[in-house]
Amino acid sequence: MRIAMVLGPGFTALDVVGPYEVLRIMPGVDVRFVSNETGPVLTDSGVLTLGATHTFADTPSPDLVLVPGMPLQTSITEELVDWLRRVHPGTSWTTSVCGGSVFLAMAGILAGRPATSHWIALPLLANYGAEPRPDERIVHSGKIVTSAGVSAGIDLALWLAGEVQGREWAEAVQLMIEYDPRPPFDSGHMSKASQPVRDLAMAEMARLYPQPVAR
Amino acid sequence: MRIAMVLGPGFTALDVVGPYEVLRIMPGVDVRFVSNETGPVLTDSGVLTLGATHTFADTPSPDLVLVPGMPLQTSITEELVDWLRRVHPGTSWTTSVCGGSVFLAMAGILAGRPATSHWIALPLLANYGAEPRPDERIVHSGKIVTSAGVSAGIDLALWLAGEVQGREWAEAVQLMIEYDPRPPFDSGHMSKASQPVRDLAMAEMARLYPQPVAR
Repeated sequence: MRIAMVLGPGFTALDVVGPYEVLRIMPGVDVRFVSNETGPVLTDSGVLTLGATHTFADTPSPDLVLVPGMPLQTSITEELVDWLRRVHPGTSWTTSVCGGSVFLAMAGILAGRPATSHWIALPLLANYGAEPRPDERIVHSGKIVTSAGVSAGIDLALWLAGEVQGREWAEAVQLMIEYDPRPPFDSGHMSKASQPVRDLAMAEMARLYPQPVAR
Repeated sequence: MRIAMVLGPGFTALDVVGPYEVLRIMPGVDVRFVSNETGPVLTDSGVLTLGATHTFADTPSPDLVLVPGMPLQTSITEELVDWLRRVHPGTSWTTSVCGGSVFLAMAGILAGRPATSHWIALPLLANYGAEPRPDERIVHSGKIVTSAGVSAGIDLALWLAGEVQGREWAEAVQLMIEYDPRPPFDSGHMSKASQPVRDLAMAEMARLYPQPVAR
């Protein structure tokens, strides 16, 4: 199984690394990190870089595609959307974490389908004919699977691992990465956070991401 | 607050990227990725690289240190352990994810203290006089905080964010990364996984990491 994880300028690292850490352990997978060119790609922190191993042009037929959240207008946006249009018909799974679903939507892949995203990007999905599902962590519609923000990619990938390799294998991966979450607080969803916490999170998102984003 | 996240050959990416994604959002933090030299550092998959931004020598006085799991004997082990011995007295927090605690133990930092690690590395801790805590996800002993395997770094970092910036801020970060985990299975701890799943996970760990590891 050829897995292509997209990297683009200003992407959110955990969107990619969470699913990668689950999927790369499966036997027989070939994981690559794709962008418009190979080499280090700077994340949204402006400090951390991850290395792209292949270009879009070098990756014409991935079996599984994963798109993370990143700013909507960057040097790779047009090429990414074109590539998604080309490769999607041949994939077994087309997936996204966080605002990555907006790029699937821009490629016409989500029209008429339920989908999710980071809460800040959810309203954008409807602009492309998708049906936003704000209360679901993973939304699957045929071979298309979208997930909520950032950390939701781990849940997405475990679900995919179960579909691809079977439940016993997926459970073994969960044990290998000790994914037995015990968050010290319970404010990970809009429906659970207090109003002051929601206000602070929205203000911080506006400060960190002043440009329109898909994340 | 100067945060130094260690990268070394064969480290596990999620050990670093989980906590990074929580801590880097806090106001006033200066996050850097340190190794024996700057540039791309290859993870345990042999595919993904993350970029080291600074050397140990350039980082004499971090406020918060985080050590991820990686193989015990690498080109940086001696320099890392020496650096930990030097910088630990001046830190506000000395922390680890997964087998990273074994490097703290090798530096003499865990002697006589409770600590945790990935389940595969827990027995090693006792060799250095630490008191393994297999059933705790985060173990804090003064300014030293160790966590369980791989994904536990997210819980560690949220706890730290609460200590450093207060609970409201930590809850806002949890909402920003939508950390509302809903694992599709419940096998993330040895006490929860079935015997066949435990056997498979142990066999896979032995296949992936044939050398002695701290992870």
